[in-house]
Amino acid sequence: MYSFANDYSEGAHPRILEALAKTNLEQNPGYGLDSHSAHAIELIRKEAACPQADVHFLVGGTQTNTLAITSVLRPHQAVIAAVTGHINTHETGAVEARGHKILPTETPDGKLTPDRIRPILARHTDEHMVQPKMVYISDSTEIGTIYTKAELEELSRFCRQNGLYLFLDGARIGAALTSASNDLTLADAAALTDLFYIGGTKNGALFGEALIVTNDALKPDFRYLIKQHGAMLAKGWLLGIQFEELFRGRLFYDLAAHANEMAVRLRDALAGRGYPFAYPPQTNQLFPVFANDEIRLLEKDFSFHPDITIDACHTSIRLVTSWATTDEGTDAFIRALDGLKKRNG
Amino acid sequence: MYSFANDYSEGAHPRILEALAKTNLEQNPGYGLDSHSAHAIELIRKEAACPQADVHFLVGGTQTNTLAITSVLRPHQAVIAAVTGHINTHETGAVEARGHKILPTETPDGKLTPDRIRPILARHTDEHMVQPKMVYISDSTEIGTIYTKAELEELSRFCRQNGLYLFLDGARIGAALTSASNDLTLADAAALTDLFYIGGTKNGALFGEALIVTNDALKPDFRYLIKQHGAMLAKGWLLGIQFEELFRGRLFYDLAAHANEMAVRLRDALAGRGYPFAYPPQTNQLFPVFANDEIRLLEKDFSFHPDITIDACHTSIRLVTSWATTDEGTDAFIRALDGLKKRNG
Amino acid sequence: MYSFANDYSEGAHPRILEALAKTNLEQNPGYGLDSHSAHAIELIRKEAACPQADVHFLVGGTQTNTLAITSVLRPHQAVIAAVTGHINTHETGAVEARGHKILPTETPDGKLTPDRIRPILARHTDEHMVQPKMVYISDSTEIGTIYTKAELEELSRFCRQNGLYLFLDGARIGAALTSASNDLTLADAAALTDLFYIGGTKNGALFGEALIVTNDALKPDFRYLIKQHGAMLAKGWLLGIQFEELFRGRLFYDLAAHANEMAVRLRDALAGRGYPFAYPPQTNQLFPVFANDEIRLLEKDFSFHPDITIDACHTSIRLVTSWATTDEGTDAFIRALDGLKKRNG
Amino acid sequence: MYSFANDYSEGAHPRILEALAKTNLEQNPGYGLDSHSAHAIELIRKEAACPQADVHFLVGGTQTNTLAITSVLRPHQAVIAAVTGHINTHETGAVEARGHKILPTETPDGKLTPDRIRPILARHTDEHMVQPKMVYISDSTEIGTIYTKAELEELSRFCRQNGLYLFLDGARIGAALTSASNDLTLADAAALTDLFYIGGTKNGALFGEALIVTNDALKPDFRYLIKQHGAMLAKGWLLGIQFEELFRGRLFYDLAAHANEMAVRLRDALAGRGYPFAYPPQTNQLFPVFANDEIRLLEKDFSFHPDITIDACHTSIRLVTSWATTDEGTDAFIRALDGLKKRNG
Repeated sequence: MYSFANDYSEGAHPRILEALAKTNLEQNPGYGLDSHSAHAIELIRKEAACPQADVHFLVGGTQTNTLAITSVLRPHQAVIAAVTGHINTHETGAVEARGHKILPTETPDGKLTPDRIRPILARHTDEHMVQPKMVYISDSTEIGTIYTKAELEELSRFCRQNGLYLFLDGARIGAALTSASNDLTLADAAALTDLFYIGGTKNGALFGEALIVTNDALKPDFRYLIKQHGAMLAKGWLLGIQFEELFRGRLFYDLAAHANEMAVRLRDALAGRGYPFAYPPQTNQLFPVFANDEIRLLEKDFSFHPDITIDACHTSIRLVTSWATTDEGTDAFIRALDGLKKRNG
Repeated sequence: MYSFANDYSEGAHPRILEALAKTNLEQNPGYGLDSHSAHAIELIRKEAACPQADVHFLVGGTQTNTLAITSVLRPHQAVIAAVTGHINTHETGAVEARGHKILPTETPDGKLTPDRIRPILARHTDEHMVQPKMVYISDSTEIGTIYTKAELEELSRFCRQNGLYLFLDGARIGAALTSASNDLTLADAAALTDLFYIGGTKNGALFGEALIVTNDALKPDFRYLIKQHGAMLAKGWLLGIQFEELFRGRLFYDLAAHANEMAVRLRDALAGRGYPFAYPPQTNQLFPVFANDEIRLLEKDFSFHPDITIDACHTSIRLVTSWATTDEGTDAFIRALDGLKKRNG
Repeated sequence: MYSFANDYSEGAHPRILEALAKTNLEQNPGYGLDSHSAHAIELIRKEAACPQADVHFLVGGTQTNTLAITSVLRPHQAVIAAVTGHINTHETGAVEARGHKILPTETPDGKLTPDRIRPILARHTDEHMVQPKMVYISDSTEIGTIYTKAELEELSRFCRQNGLYLFLDGARIGAALTSASNDLTLADAAALTDLFYIGGTKNGALFGEALIVTNDALKPDFRYLIKQHGAMLAKGWLLGIQFEELFRGRLFYDLAAHANEMAVRLRDALAGRGYPFAYPPQTNQLFPVFANDEIRLLEKDFSFHPDITIDACHTSIRLVTSWATTDEGTDAFIRALDGLKKRNG
Repeated sequence: MYSFANDYSEGAHPRILEALAKTNLEQNPGYGLDSHSAHAIELIRKEAACPQADVHFLVGGTQTNTLAITSVLRPHQAVIAAVTGHINTHETGAVEARGHKILPTETPDGKLTPDRIRPILARHTDEHMVQPKMVYISDSTEIGTIYTKAELEELSRFCRQNGLYLFLDGARIGAALTSASNDLTLADAAALTDLFYIGGTKNGALFGEALIVTNDALKPDFRYLIKQHGAMLAKGWLLGIQFEELFRGRLFYDLAAHANEMAVRLRDALAGRGYPFAYPPQTNQLFPVFANDEIRLLEKDFSFHPDITIDACHTSIRLVTSWATTDEGTDAFIRALDGLKKRNG
């Protein structure tokens, strides 16, 4: 059984584990006030070309999203998100639990544009409704698509013109930045948003996300909120060490590039055999459409999640590759496709 | 200028004001623990045929909705509502501010049915998503439509089968129960829901809503929650006296019937002159469609709110009648329609 | 049975009821956007000498306190209060329910001073603890004492030096301002705090509190928060009309002065008969100490609340006078004291 | 510089790191639904003699406390804690941020008893105040003291008689259970509380706490709440593997015993040299009192936190030993004491 269920099925890249082992008996001050965290912050500021940014290391994605959103909104303010946005669907109401409405909007591709946001602004004009104040986007999105630089620039401009904060969920920003269709950089993300995060959990860290706050107005007292959310890791250097390793050289990009490479191999194999995709395959999440009986056969040897019902006989599935996906696993899946072909033929 | 802007543009029916004046210098215990409130509770229990119900008098609708919903849900539970539901649109995120997600569903008529709820239940199956636990409906709805007894029975059965609480927002239940198309009673509402409220503010009280909790499991400690929400009126007898007056005889129904009667006159005049309606005109809220230049003319003498854009040249408006709407005001509006006709002709 | 249980045992001063009756059939726009509210706001701005202040009319005290406090604090910020502060004891955790810790401090007289606040600031120095950001005081306090102008000035200066908002709960500010020991004015309260409220419920209004926000930084979007708290009265002019009446002339002060006058009569009678007070009797709340068997006798003809246990045989009780307290009721109580005397003698 | 600042200054015990390394490339299902977590749950159930308990692995202490408390209380319910309780002082208002008041009570030793709780229950009798519903205790406490079995039994009985949930914060339960003065077992903790947790972070795990819910009524839907709190680790098996290792044999106890052993050496050295303690030294947290100039000398070679000001010249400091404290570090500190002696002499 080989798993394409997600990109966090294995532990950490060996270099990261080694770094943790090597420093294991160092005595470090707690709560992220250690030298490894300080160094990792410098590396990220440099890579993102934002020397003034505040960088906070956190453990997981829901935690980071909830913290970033609810720490900067006043109680009557709301966040706009794609219907498919992670905060709207798969975080068990964490944003609402902290008091804020999510204003969801339908999209064909999981991406927000000024045109999709304008009707929401037009509808929310007085104090009987919540006040839209933040736009939440993901890159790559929950359905594997990515923003171009032009798209992000346009969205950023629109947000600034309309007094909206722009927050980018970068749980899979590694996969986005190393996609063949990408023309964005980490520095662009930093320059065009008010705050965003770089996902480690889904890109080879044991765990960890780096929240980068570039808007000065949003910086004060963030550490209070981290603590209040139960998100301040006692042994904070564990996060610092991991991000040091990811950004000391190119490891962060290399791991994501590997995930994308494996995805390209699967994508080409699928496309070459005539399987359509529910959404454009741009990163390490693929959503090919299979006949339901094909899915039942594939499930014998591979684990993955069904996505949406296409029709009575077809369903899209989600295949996720990662830094740890092996050639063997990928080859096996491609062979399984051939097996389906033969059987169908 | 005559206002059809809403059904709370005037104070209270004179009998209610008189009752308040007559009792003004009585010394009463505070917080609803007085004899007037006790008597009003008995009258409502009797009228709703629910002798065991808990009845709480509150000041306003948003307060009552927020209290009813957030007092019975656990933090991970959500409430299902029509997209047009008051809690989803016009309460400034009050339910979310207390921690709960609203799961909105599109409807053509503002009403929920098992078929509109089932897909939501089907999508929410594990702990990564909120848990749907309550269904919120309004009768009459925010767009003036009402539930038949058969519809409410079906919905109630469905909710009970699926472990969902059913809460009915009765801000305009007077208008619903006295509509010509209605076959529900207050006793039906009590029997078929877990909790619901009877709106006074929009039906001739100075202010006040009566929340009726019929499900025993939801009764404990409600007064704590009322106090915590800032919803426990110090001079609680002011609410008791008003509901005593509304339910001592038939005043509650008479006032709503008057509102509906005025609406029927407007409806017939509009329909007779060929104006279509955006939604079926069943109660005291009418949504006729006018040409935009007609609206500009009407606005000179009448106040009302625009509703939705129908096309480049047409908009629906909302006309609301009330217990206080006068024959003169209604006649004037009908004459204005004739004026439009003449001008158009 | 005559009640000294509180100062909200009767309805409203007749002039207020008359004003409501006289305007009852006016059509007014909802939600406080009417001309009565606008006029009342002007009267209050003038009386408080704060022409730029924002004034919001609300229904009750807990609602006003919760709104004022939780609308201006960020999630990690806390409010300092006397242990006896209303928000700390008698609001069922309303402030905490909206997310904020109250930092209580012991006081002998219900009042806060820089010296009582400093140790709290000294203890709260990093992000592992909440950040003290507001000071909550009441004038008169929950135990009937009042602030002198010098005290309030000193506290205000301290708050400004330490970046703390100062909020004054004026549920009984009428009683404070008309106390013989008082040297404060409404204009002082406005000048020395960031926001405060003028209580109507306990001073002759049917209900209603006027929240005055003088600090510009705290003004934006308050109406959103009022609505979200379920605190925006649909028929907002009911509040406007009452405050118009209270501040059109001197009615607000006259009513409070009457309450204090009745309290002085009781106080002198009690002191003259040798009864001690648990706290200095300065306003319309008196806390005389009685032998427990005396209390049992008094309870036969008067209603009031016990306060604290002094020793095995003695308890203080709370006697509250109001705008509505009659000479007859007061005389009867004094006669009852004589009855106790005779019996004891 | 050697640190006695806390018991989470180093990474993890080598056996734990090895276990993580050994399993690093296994593919595991996410969110704690893996076989390592299942195995660790079985080991804990067995060790705590509670085969029916629900066990949830979480990342940190504040997260676990907030989750445990706010998931089982209704909005109007409060938790009783010692003034020194971690939730009351060092969690940045996390419990209040989720809506609940903490009712603090002064204690000389950081421990709660029925006698310290009764006055709180006596004061909270109606809906104008929060409803006390849970008792929060820590073992060992924040000041290093521990509960005897008799004390915990008495407290448990009292809580059950009064309808109060009993929650034990076991961040340092390892140190408590291996203290020379201890007569409790993990099974006692499970039997006498409604829910409690076993701390890993401060006892040799890289991170991780195991929350054990024994009261059936509190079990439903906990995983929803974990997710909502951002507390569901994607790679949940990382927690499972660590607790497997801690409870596979006696490692959990051995590590805590080592910490206590080092503390005993320090305690004896301090006591032998005449240093008093601010609180009884029972576990791995010691609070010796030093002259301020001695502290300045010690700070040159050791890191630790000051605790409380004893008088103008003396301060207690907190010394914490851990699973990782070395003989060398301990010896060095003892030699430094001798140095102080010599200098003073």
